[in-house]
Amino acid sequence: MKARVHITLKSGVLDPQGKAIAHALGSLGFAGVDDVRQGKFIEIKLTEQDRGKAEAAVKQMCEKLLANTVIENYTVELVG
Amino acid sequence: MKARVHITLKSGVLDPQGKAIAHALGSLGFAGVDDVRQGKFIEIKLTEQDRGKAEAAVKQMCEKLLANTVIENYTVELVG
Repeated sequence: MKARVHITLKSGVLDPQGKAIAHALGSLGFAGVDDVRQGKFIEIKLTEQDRGKAEAAVKQMCEKLLANTVIENYTVELVG
Repeated sequence: MKARVHITLKSGVLDPQGKAIAHALGSLGFAGVDDVRQGKFIEIKLTEQDRGKAEAAVKQMCEKLLANTVIENYTVELVG
């Protein structure tokens, strides 16, 4: 089973990396870019076959290692 | 309109960051982690309302700035 995890900054948290991308896009001539936010995308291949257990495990991974829950949100999506 | 862009390393390209995460998860006691791949997730708010034009613009942004197409794949998804 595969888990797709998105980790994004909470709204209101400053995102300098996103701002830099927005600025660079402007410099390259791309108009009409309102805002850019950059997050992380992590794909985890698990041996666990039980959907419920896999989801619980990945949420634990996010809480303990992958996300900084003070400033970041995470979503877990199971595939296959 | 909002674009969600996923940038992932092509398969076969070494992903040291993913390996580090997999190792750290193992150290934390998470068993059953086969493989971890880390990518980027970028949300772009666009003023463009035309779906086709927005998608074309975001693909251009990926080619020119966001992705290194030698080692990375990208997918563009439009929301709203």
